[in-house]
Amino acid sequence: MSSQPPHPALLIPGPIEFDDAVLQSMSHYSESHVGQPFVNCFGDVLSMLRKLFITTDPNSQPFVISGSGTLGWDQVAANLTEPGDDALVLHTGYFADSFADCFETYGVKATQLKAPIGDRPQLDEIEKALKEKKYKVITVTHTDTSTGVLSEIAPLSKLVKEVSPETLLIVDGVCSVGCEEIRFDDWGIDAVITASQKAIGCPAGLSILMASGRAIQTFKNRKTPPNSYFGSWKNWLPIMQNYEAKKPSYFATPSPQLIHALHTSLTQILSIPLEQRFQRHKEVSQKIKKTVADLGLKQLASKPENQANGMTAIYLPNDLKPPEILPNLLKKGVIFAGGLHKEIATKYIRFGHMGVSVMDPQRDDVDRALQGLKDALGEVGYKAP
Amino acid sequence: MSSQPPHPALLIPGPIEFDDAVLQSMSHYSESHVGQPFVNCFGDVLSMLRKLFITTDPNSQPFVISGSGTLGWDQVAANLTEPGDDALVLHTGYFADSFADCFETYGVKATQLKAPIGDRPQLDEIEKALKEKKYKVITVTHTDTSTGVLSEIAPLSKLVKEVSPETLLIVDGVCSVGCEEIRFDDWGIDAVITASQKAIGCPAGLSILMASGRAIQTFKNRKTPPNSYFGSWKNWLPIMQNYEAKKPSYFATPSPQLIHALHTSLTQILSIPLEQRFQRHKEVSQKIKKTVADLGLKQLASKPENQANGMTAIYLPNDLKPPEILPNLLKKGVIFAGGLHKEIATKYIRFGHMGVSVMDPQRDDVDRALQGLKDALGEVGYKAP
Repeated sequence: MSSQPPHPALLIPGPIEFDDAVLQSMSHYSESHVGQPFVNCFGDVLSMLRKLFITTDPNSQPFVISGSGTLGWDQVAANLTEPGDDALVLHTGYFADSFADCFETYGVKATQLKAPIGDRPQLDEIEKALKEKKYKVITVTHTDTSTGVLSEIAPLSKLVKEVSPETLLIVDGVCSVGCEEIRFDDWGIDAVITASQKAIGCPAGLSILMASGRAIQTFKNRKTPPNSYFGSWKNWLPIMQNYEAKKPSYFATPSPQLIHALHTSLTQILSIPLEQRFQRHKEVSQKIKKTVADLGLKQLASKPENQANGMTAIYLPNDLKPPEILPNLLKKGVIFAGGLHKEIATKYIRFGHMGVSVMDPQRDDVDRALQGLKDALGEVGYKAP
Repeated sequence: MSSQPPHPALLIPGPIEFDDAVLQSMSHYSESHVGQPFVNCFGDVLSMLRKLFITTDPNSQPFVISGSGTLGWDQVAANLTEPGDDALVLHTGYFADSFADCFETYGVKATQLKAPIGDRPQLDEIEKALKEKKYKVITVTHTDTSTGVLSEIAPLSKLVKEVSPETLLIVDGVCSVGCEEIRFDDWGIDAVITASQKAIGCPAGLSILMASGRAIQTFKNRKTPPNSYFGSWKNWLPIMQNYEAKKPSYFATPSPQLIHALHTSLTQILSIPLEQRFQRHKEVSQKIKKTVADLGLKQLASKPENQANGMTAIYLPNDLKPPEILPNLLKKGVIFAGGLHKEIATKYIRFGHMGVSVMDPQRDDVDRALQGLKDALGEVGYKAP
C-alpha cells in the first residue's frame, strides 16, 4: 500500500506521479554537499545517467544542475553556440518557440522550421534548410509537451550527418527521456536535455543533460567565453567530473535531497531492461489512443508515427473548453492538463502517461483516467459515435 | 523524538540541519504546478518572504526560482546591470570573487574593493571608491561563508545614499537571511539574494531574491534585453506576480516539493517575532565565540563587530590541518567544514550555527559540537592555554 495520502492521480505531461520510495528519498536527512556519502550518491547518479541515455563512450558527459528543464536550453545556447552562430530549430509546438527565444537571448540567430499543428517538419524540408546555410546546431523537440507530437531522431541524425556533418544535433528530451527510446551513441546525438519530473520520475528541480564528446570538444574550442554564469560548463564540467570520480568539489551547492530522489528513481528504472520500459510505454499509449479513437475523439498529433508514447493531446468534442471538463475529471480523482499551444490552447486537453502510472502494475491510474474521461464527457452530454 | 534516522549533526555553514516537518514536506505527493492547491502554496511563500525580509512596500518583488544561491548573482547581473556598466564589489572572501566573475560574464566591469583577510572594507574607503566612478550597483556579502566576516548593511546604505544615490545596493545574503537582522525597507536595500538551505532551513535547490520597487523599475528601464534566459525577470516577473495573486502561470516548472518545504520552514520562522530569532542566533554565537576564545583559538573574523552570528571560522592551532581534525569530529557525531578562502584554506575550519540547531531547545547540536571540538583537539595533543 502506498505511503502517500489519498490524492487525485496526476496525469499531466509532467510532473507525474512519483513512487513512494522516491518521495521518501526527498526527506533524506541533511548531508554535506562535499561529504563522501553524498558525493558517492551524486557520482552514482551520473554513472546511471550514462546507462539511461545508452552511452558507453567515455567522452560523453552527464550534467545534473539545480534548476528546471529550461536551464538545459541555456546550457546549450551558452556553451555550444556563440554569438553570431546560426541554430536551426525544428518546430513541433510551444517549446521550439521558447528554445528559439533562448538562443536569441544569447546572441544566436534561431531559424525555425515549422510544420502544421500536429505534424513535424519532414526530412526533405530539413535537408533543404540544412543546405541553405551553415548551422552550428540543429534542435529537435523529441516529444513536444504542448502537442504530443513525437519527432524521429535516428533518421534525422542520419540526414544531418550526410548533409551537414559539422552541425551538432541537440535533442530536447524533457518529455521523452525515460519513456521513448533514445540511443545516444548509436544515433550520434550531441546533446539531450531533460528534466527530472517527467518520465524519469523524480520531483522537479533538476536540469539533466547528456553531452557527447564532440559537444564537449566544441565547448572547449569556443572563441568566446560561455555567456551564462550559472549555466556555464566552465564552472560545472570539473565539478561533474569530480563527482563522478567520487571526489568532493564545489561550484554551487547542489540539492542533496533531489539527488537522492533521482538516485532512487534511476535505480528503479535501470532494474529492468530499458527496452521493456519503452515497450510498456508504447503498449499503454496504444491502448489510450485506441480508447480515445473509440470515443470518437481526435488527437493533435495527426499521424500514428508522430504520436508520442508518454502523452496524448486530445481535441475536445462539441466545442467544449478545458474548464468545462477538467473539474469533472478532478472530481473523479484524475488530473489532466489544459492546452498549451498558443493558437489552440482552449480546444484540447493533455493526458500524461509516463513513469509509475504506466510501469507499476499495482496502480490503476490509466484505467481510472480513461473511465473518468468517458464518464466526464458523458456528463456534459457527449455521446461517442 | 525526531523522525529522522540517527546521523551526524550537520554544522557546516549550509546546508544546515532541517526540522522534521520541513523534511516531511519534501515528500509531498505530486501536484500540478498550475493546480490551485500548489499555486496557493507558492503564493503564500512569496507573501511570507515579504515578512522575512521585513518589507511592506507593495513595489518590492520576491522571486523564488529553482536553482542554487548562485543563480541570484545571475539574476542581478543579467537584469539589473547592462553590458558596459560598472559594479563595485566589496570583498570579504571567496564569494566576492565569484560574484565579480558573474558580472564579467554578463559584460559588466566589476571593481573589487578588498580588505585584509578577516576584515571588511571600511566606510571611508568605500566612500572614496564611490566618488571615483559612477557605479550602477554596489554589492556586499552580508556574511561571507568562506570567512565568517559580517558586513554592516545599514551604515553602508546610508553612505551610498549620500554619496552615490543612484547606485543600487545589492546584498548577498545567502549566509545571513534568517539569522542576521535585515530590514529591507528601513535600510533601503535594492536586492537581497539568498538560498534555501542555510538559515531559512529548507533543503537546497531554490534561489530566493527580494527586489525593491526601484530595482524593478531599473529592470523595466533597461536599454538592452536581459542577457540570461533562465534567469530573466522578463520571463519570471509575471509568473511571480501571478503566483502571489494565486493565479496559475507558467514559464518553467517549479519544484512543488521544495516550495512546500519552504512554506513549512517560513511558517515556522514567522511563528515567533523575527527579533527573537536574530537575538537567539546572537546569543548562541556569542557563547560559541567565547568557548573558542577560551580554548585559545583565533577566529578569521578579526574584530567582534565583523563576526557573523550564524557561523564561526576558526584557525586551527599548532599548524593542524582540517583533515587532521574533521574526521575526529565526525566520529563524535559532528560535521564541520574545512576552509574555503583560497589563500588559507588549509589553516582553518568552519562551524555553522543557524536554524534549528540554534532555535530548537530540544536539540543539543551546538553543545555537542563545542564539546566535540575540545575533545578532538585534546586527542591530537592540543592543550588550551
